[in-house]
Amino acid sequence: MREYFSRRRAALRSLLADSGVDALLVTDLLNIRYLTGFTGSNAALLVHGSGDDKTIFCTDGRYTVQSETEVPDLERVLDRASAAKLADLAASKTREFGKTGFESQHVSVEQHEDLKVRFDRVDLVRTPGLVEQLRLVKDEQEIEALRQACAAADRALEDLVSAGGLRPGRTELDVARDLENRMFGHGSTAPSFDSIVAAGAHSAIPHHRPTSSVLATGDFVKIDFGATVDGYHSDMTRTFVLGKPAAWQEEVYELVRGAQEAGCDAVLPGAEVSEVDKAARNVIVDAGHGDEFGHGLGHGVGLQVHEAPSLAATGVGTLTAGMAVTVEPGVYLPGRGGVRIEDTLVVREGTPELLTLSTKELVVV
Amino acid sequence: MREYFSRRRAALRSLLADSGVDALLVTDLLNIRYLTGFTGSNAALLVHGSGDDKTIFCTDGRYTVQSETEVPDLERVLDRASAAKLADLAASKTREFGKTGFESQHVSVEQHEDLKVRFDRVDLVRTPGLVEQLRLVKDEQEIEALRQACAAADRALEDLVSAGGLRPGRTELDVARDLENRMFGHGSTAPSFDSIVAAGAHSAIPHHRPTSSVLATGDFVKIDFGATVDGYHSDMTRTFVLGKPAAWQEEVYELVRGAQEAGCDAVLPGAEVSEVDKAARNVIVDAGHGDEFGHGLGHGVGLQVHEAPSLAATGVGTLTAGMAVTVEPGVYLPGRGGVRIEDTLVVREGTPELLTLSTKELVVV
Repeated sequence: MREYFSRRRAALRSLLADSGVDALLVTDLLNIRYLTGFTGSNAALLVHGSGDDKTIFCTDGRYTVQSETEVPDLERVLDRASAAKLADLAASKTREFGKTGFESQHVSVEQHEDLKVRFDRVDLVRTPGLVEQLRLVKDEQEIEALRQACAAADRALEDLVSAGGLRPGRTELDVARDLENRMFGHGSTAPSFDSIVAAGAHSAIPHHRPTSSVLATGDFVKIDFGATVDGYHSDMTRTFVLGKPAAWQEEVYELVRGAQEAGCDAVLPGAEVSEVDKAARNVIVDAGHGDEFGHGLGHGVGLQVHEAPSLAATGVGTLTAGMAVTVEPGVYLPGRGGVRIEDTLVVREGTPELLTLSTKELVVV
Repeated sequence: MREYFSRRRAALRSLLADSGVDALLVTDLLNIRYLTGFTGSNAALLVHGSGDDKTIFCTDGRYTVQSETEVPDLERVLDRASAAKLADLAASKTREFGKTGFESQHVSVEQHEDLKVRFDRVDLVRTPGLVEQLRLVKDEQEIEALRQACAAADRALEDLVSAGGLRPGRTELDVARDLENRMFGHGSTAPSFDSIVAAGAHSAIPHHRPTSSVLATGDFVKIDFGATVDGYHSDMTRTFVLGKPAAWQEEVYELVRGAQEAGCDAVLPGAEVSEVDKAARNVIVDAGHGDEFGHGLGHGVGLQVHEAPSLAATGVGTLTAGMAVTVEPGVYLPGRGGVRIEDTLVVREGTPELLTLSTKELVVV
């Protein structure tokens, strides 16, 4: 486990060398978690380019015990104003920290004003997104956490359906709470995001929030939800029909299912992200429903439920083996209903590894 | 309801005049919610000093319908890059937006670089914390939401206790989930924060996260939790004893209870925040337990569960009628157990208004 963290810091050090800085002040808590394993709510990390022996971790007194356990392999100092403390330490060693980068995509303008004063004669350089660049490609420890998060969501959904949890008369909110509780039972520490349960005409609203409106026979029920394991998120959408589906429902469902399959098939190392979007979108456009698919195809998933890369028409860049992404086309018919089908998968040489395994057949409940 | 939002924007306009800017670009989503009522996940707001007729709200296409309902009283434009869009609009009207402030406590260094280019000949000025300054003092609409959030938490705790939910053999996690579900049932949309349920020796850890360890007879059980209503948070801690309390438990409990009462009594308009902290702390110090109360006395609560003011020895400033704060002293005996008692209350002329009404008698379950 701990060797993953030291390997990530080693990978970061070669980015520091490329950026021409001696060190990086890391202030984003997710980036700190990625590099050290620390899960508390206040910390900063000064990664030195020469190695772990000059790298310093800072948190406050609430986390004395926790940081000993979680970050045993780095020098630790305690201070409530963690970033300021590390800035002061760097300023006292200008020989070692002469040119230090900071996370300018994250640090606010006011915080930067304070850091500039503290870093004093240290040359403080904007180095946005270095750790995020590493986080794009997941290592096996991360993929295992994603796999477990996806499995918790799969099991919770299976339990919900087999317990009759999707029945006419329940409210969207009932279903959302029920599903979230079942995820806890399968090892999730928290929902990945506010679960979407959208019945009937609500299913045509892409990001509907569950209400007290009641599920009824004939409804599409669209469920978009996720579990969290070890800080890593799953993201999955399934759409059900309550009772015998109407012809238009079967038609829309099969269209989205075909588009989703085409999207998954396009998830390959080297693929342009905009081409992956297009592979799925073309299926929907060709069927004359292009205007009813008004969002991007998918997004990266990891320590954040939405992170890079963006699989969208306007997205830039290519996929690399080890990236974890969602593929989630939808067709939404205002006032009638909508279908979205979403998986979380890992880019692999050859076929992608599917992490969300719930069936994509049209399930009639 | 809507008049509260326009009143808040009017109050902001007089701060803009004081700061010598024509307008303010608001990018913090909670500040946007405070000023407009918008609850979506992407927006920006350009508040013009002359009035609502020159004020522009921007969100993206996902929120077309929602923003019509939530923000009917302002000009609305749609763009995924909401802040950039408003910057471009301001740049096209330099006569009206010649000097525009931005939320420099919130905008990142990279985003600022982008905004500087877009604002072009507009003079972009750092104006940190203007909306936060208004948010310090709650209006009656906000206090009503806080009252409801506190009531949801009170009822959930009462239900939990009367249903026998605090019994030996349950895990800390069981109790946390049970309590959170009961809050949903009383109108909470989400827990205010990850609930703390800490039994036995765990109760001596101020911010313990619930585990699968089991409640046992003789344990202190410390529960720190909150509900959310209309975006406003409650925050309350109660400590129970399972079975007949030992003499040391009664002693620690009564000490903390006395300190908490002294703290609440000191919550008065005009009081220095550090003096409020001291009023409670002195009770604990005088009893020889000062070293075992290692955190501040309390904090402001509102759209964020932790916000200004900070009631701490190092805090600066005075209380004003309408501020909502917590008072939460604790005494933690490592390896044995700890007690914290916390209320949310509103500063009023005369006595403060107590929003969390659960009993502070030592409840033996």
